[in-house]
Amino acid sequence: MSLQRYSGVKLDNRSFSERRTRALASAKRGISISYSSEEHTLMHAIDAYLETSRSFNLAYERLGEWYGIYFPELKPGSPQELARLAVLASKGAPTEQDITAIINDRQRSMQIKQKMDSTMGRKMIEEEKGALESFANLLLSIAGAMEQLEAYINGASKRLLPNVAYLTDEKIAAELLSKAGSIEKLATMPASTIQLLGAEKALFKHIKFGSKPPKYGILFKLPDVTNAPRDKKGKIARAYAAKIAIAVKADFYTKKFIAEMLKKSLAHSLEKIRTSPTAPKKFQKRGGFR
Amino acid sequence: MSLQRYSGVKLDNRSFSERRTRALASAKRGISISYSSEEHTLMHAIDAYLETSRSFNLAYERLGEWYGIYFPELKPGSPQELARLAVLASKGAPTEQDITAIINDRQRSMQIKQKMDSTMGRKMIEEEKGALESFANLLLSIAGAMEQLEAYINGASKRLLPNVAYLTDEKIAAELLSKAGSIEKLATMPASTIQLLGAEKALFKHIKFGSKPPKYGILFKLPDVTNAPRDKKGKIARAYAAKIAIAVKADFYTKKFIAEMLKKSLAHSLEKIRTSPTAPKKFQKRGGFR
Repeated sequence: MSLQRYSGVKLDNRSFSERRTRALASAKRGISISYSSEEHTLMHAIDAYLETSRSFNLAYERLGEWYGIYFPELKPGSPQELARLAVLASKGAPTEQDITAIINDRQRSMQIKQKMDSTMGRKMIEEEKGALESFANLLLSIAGAMEQLEAYINGASKRLLPNVAYLTDEKIAAELLSKAGSIEKLATMPASTIQLLGAEKALFKHIKFGSKPPKYGILFKLPDVTNAPRDKKGKIARAYAAKIAIAVKADFYTKKFIAEMLKKSLAHSLEKIRTSPTAPKKFQKRGGFR
Repeated sequence: MSLQRYSGVKLDNRSFSERRTRALASAKRGISISYSSEEHTLMHAIDAYLETSRSFNLAYERLGEWYGIYFPELKPGSPQELARLAVLASKGAPTEQDITAIINDRQRSMQIKQKMDSTMGRKMIEEEKGALESFANLLLSIAGAMEQLEAYINGASKRLLPNVAYLTDEKIAAELLSKAGSIEKLATMPASTIQLLGAEKALFKHIKFGSKPPKYGILFKLPDVTNAPRDKKGKIARAYAAKIAIAVKADFYTKKFIAEMLKKSLAHSLEKIRTSPTAPKKFQKRGGFR
């Protein structure tokens, strides 16, 4: 009623409900379109991957300590090896063949079998077996899911952000995307913002309390940054950010593959940074926050 | 050599290495004995359970958002339901029978099928299916492992801490044990320490900075404490702690089951606290830290 009064047009009820239906349909279409891009999936996949990898590390540590009360002499080569040995042990005394099937190294598995037989650890009682086995199996499930997620992330990053993925790596490209919120937003960001994606906490700490400003966020994960001498880490992160800002514009707007060229020019800048004289010790400050 | 000089006894080399062997064997025996109690397994199991439940909640939230881009209209009844629907959807368009097999409610599954067919969500592309499916399956694996852990914890708590488990519940008993480090340590703790187990951070904040002292740690999880009026929460936690201190002594030393009696006397104290007059509003302070 009020709508009729304000719009100044006399509407009968049918055309009002018709308009309502149309408006709803248009809103639905709008949502549909905004969901239609694969970038949403990629962002969830990388976030899920990062969260799962944290859970995986926690579970690995826990299983190491837990299985350690039965077999404290074990030095596992990998999380998977530990989990498989724990599953094996919870099923009963394993033979050397069982262990070799996991370890794939005759000599090491012989040593493990020997240590297992003379272990000073606790003897597993029947009631404990199920709990240990299911927890060890969970570790294997997590590892499996992470592999699947990683495979998808690598593929999707190359599809959606071919230039950025080529310049950095698939997972870093996906992380940048997830922090930015969409490819479009990432494409409109200046290099300085890209450089600090993932360092928001340190940045606001800097603005609010005057602590040292951060020099890199997600880009710290680049081997070129991680392995650089302390006073050059920030410069290298900046050089990368500058090229990423160009690469993502190509990914979003022109869809041309220019990463090869960018990588060459980046290598040139990095070389320059690396060969530039290092600041004397007393002017060097401690690295930024992450 | 220096050993020989200091001990004042002349030892030949054989007996020296013999002593060394014996000392090592005795150390091994000591470790063996200290590992022999089941309490270590229970402590790892409860810690693993708590960590896993955090991972589970994270993964549930993530999956809800992720699957929400394909089917934003879904209001899942439980994490398992969500995960099973996501697995189903990632295998291709599900029929109504498929959905009914998960939901177990004809009418709801019909509604879900209808909404699914007219969804405004994204259409899943082939590449995404594997990632979503494996992540949804991970959620189910975590839920399965948690069930197994819970079953073990409930049994082991009743075996090792029958009195405390009866007085509180199996998981709270296990958490108290894990915080204390061993049944023996828990048995020698005064009620005031047991009351604050799990509130260490708030306690040290109180000691160091003079913030309000905590009133409860793990015991906050007791429904009697959680549901109490604010000014009585602390008193109820204290009453519980006093009885737990007695119960755990019975569990460790006498191994008698006295929890029935303790529970009656506890009920009496709780009744007294509940019927005591509430402090006037202006004297009530905000609850303690956890």
